[in-house]
Amino acid sequence: MGRITQRRPVTRITLGAEPRRRPDTLAVEEPLEIRVAGEPLSVTMRTPGHDVELATGFLLSEGAIRAGSDVVGAIHCGGPGTGGADNTYNVLDIALAPGVPLPGAEMARRVYMTSSCGVCGKASIDAVRTESVYDVSTDPLEIDAAMLATFPDALRAQQEVFDKTGGLHAAALFDGRTGELIVLREDVGRHNAVDKVVGWAAMNDHVPLAGHILMVSGRVAFELAQKAAMAGIPMIAAVSAPSSLAVELAAEAGMTLVGFLRGDRMNVYAGAQRVLTPEVSSTRHELVT
Amino acid sequence: MGRITQRRPVTRITLGAEPRRRPDTLAVEEPLEIRVAGEPLSVTMRTPGHDVELATGFLLSEGAIRAGSDVVGAIHCGGPGTGGADNTYNVLDIALAPGVPLPGAEMARRVYMTSSCGVCGKASIDAVRTESVYDVSTDPLEIDAAMLATFPDALRAQQEVFDKTGGLHAAALFDGRTGELIVLREDVGRHNAVDKVVGWAAMNDHVPLAGHILMVSGRVAFELAQKAAMAGIPMIAAVSAPSSLAVELAAEAGMTLVGFLRGDRMNVYAGAQRVLTPEVSSTRHELVT
Repeated sequence: MGRITQRRPVTRITLGAEPRRRPDTLAVEEPLEIRVAGEPLSVTMRTPGHDVELATGFLLSEGAIRAGSDVVGAIHCGGPGTGGADNTYNVLDIALAPGVPLPGAEMARRVYMTSSCGVCGKASIDAVRTESVYDVSTDPLEIDAAMLATFPDALRAQQEVFDKTGGLHAAALFDGRTGELIVLREDVGRHNAVDKVVGWAAMNDHVPLAGHILMVSGRVAFELAQKAAMAGIPMIAAVSAPSSLAVELAAEAGMTLVGFLRGDRMNVYAGAQRVLTPEVSSTRHELVT
Repeated sequence: MGRITQRRPVTRITLGAEPRRRPDTLAVEEPLEIRVAGEPLSVTMRTPGHDVELATGFLLSEGAIRAGSDVVGAIHCGGPGTGGADNTYNVLDIALAPGVPLPGAEMARRVYMTSSCGVCGKASIDAVRTESVYDVSTDPLEIDAAMLATFPDALRAQQEVFDKTGGLHAAALFDGRTGELIVLREDVGRHNAVDKVVGWAAMNDHVPLAGHILMVSGRVAFELAQKAAMAGIPMIAAVSAPSSLAVELAAEAGMTLVGFLRGDRMNVYAGAQRVLTPEVSSTRHELVT
């Protein structure tokens, strides 16, 4: 396999110390298009590996099959645009046993889902770059690492529903100049929490969100980075890990992506020039003779 | 609003102490169908509240609008089957400004997503109950709370990729009789991790998964409970919180749902009869006179 994790350089910042550049391991995220008898049924953003199990389990939970024996074949095929020769392993065609009815158009319509994407990560990123009307790469935002480090506590302090239930994701917008939390929304779905924050901004005429930082309570997958790009947000900060595709999108779009923002530490996966760290005066220890 | 959280009775178990029945607060999860000019565009499982922001942010991130001023109206309408009179607040119709092109059929196809559901939580649950060919309510599975409490460590021990990246969800199947971990899969998407586990089981002729427990590393939303029901799994255990709709589905399907399974504690949200706790001998403190 070898594609389950990916190594990329990351800037590790600890307040009061020199930033260090070193490789970090990311969970790989890529789209998988599931087809049945050649017809596209669903696109899901997944970690490569066990794709036949994924498709079989998906078909079972959608009621399209009742047992593993209903699936008699599975083949990875080249996606559109790859000419078939360059197999991306991101399209999987399932053959059903004789007598098992093909999923109808209604099921395809019910489950089809894609985030403006083709079937390889590169195509997904290109689609976002083409569709977004805002260019975040030129955003002059700069922020002190020490100010960024205050965001998780500010987020947590306003997570009212999480306090009661432990069951909600949060997303918030911060002003990059003052460090002020402007709006926070919670939802069972992390993409919904981000949509609500961006929607609030649009309704209050703040889009594009130049100079702002989107902070999320969990991980950053492709879809969240995409939403930030579409709203013109130049920086995402997250309490947990980003996926490989989120980092690739951020890097290509010129967006800053900060992960594992906890206590006095953070990892900068893309656009590190926007995160300022004061020069650390190296203390000299002189030997007293 | 009042629908962001919901109180339900829960059985709180601490190993070595008497189980306690008390109310617990859950994050509410319900479907929202987003329409534009009356045409369904998307269904998302969300926490009610700020629905107009959610729809506006969603349309912006899909490239259907460029600014909040492109939306000129939003109205909650009764869903199909409600006769329009009983507004569930789960269908939101958006009116776009003159000159803003309506999303085409291609966008509707690209983003339409629903988990076998109608537009109210009840309809979603009914759909699952109708579509699932397995009845988990009669599954005779019983398990000691002390055995259940060993599952999180077993799960964590096998999360190889998480250890490297901190970026993956895990799902695993446990044998309810021996407590053995049978299969574990990791993925950037929690639904994918569950699909892979169920797919593995189907491919190895283990479906329906009577007598088995599905353990997940995070939260349990409706979609995960649905996948378990479709595969005939009588019990779900999770490290974090369930959503309201997941608990409702579990209760109606006769499935056991355990949340916040950490250390020597757990909350049982549905089907508590399957979780056995040894009788605690009450120590009598007699006053010495």
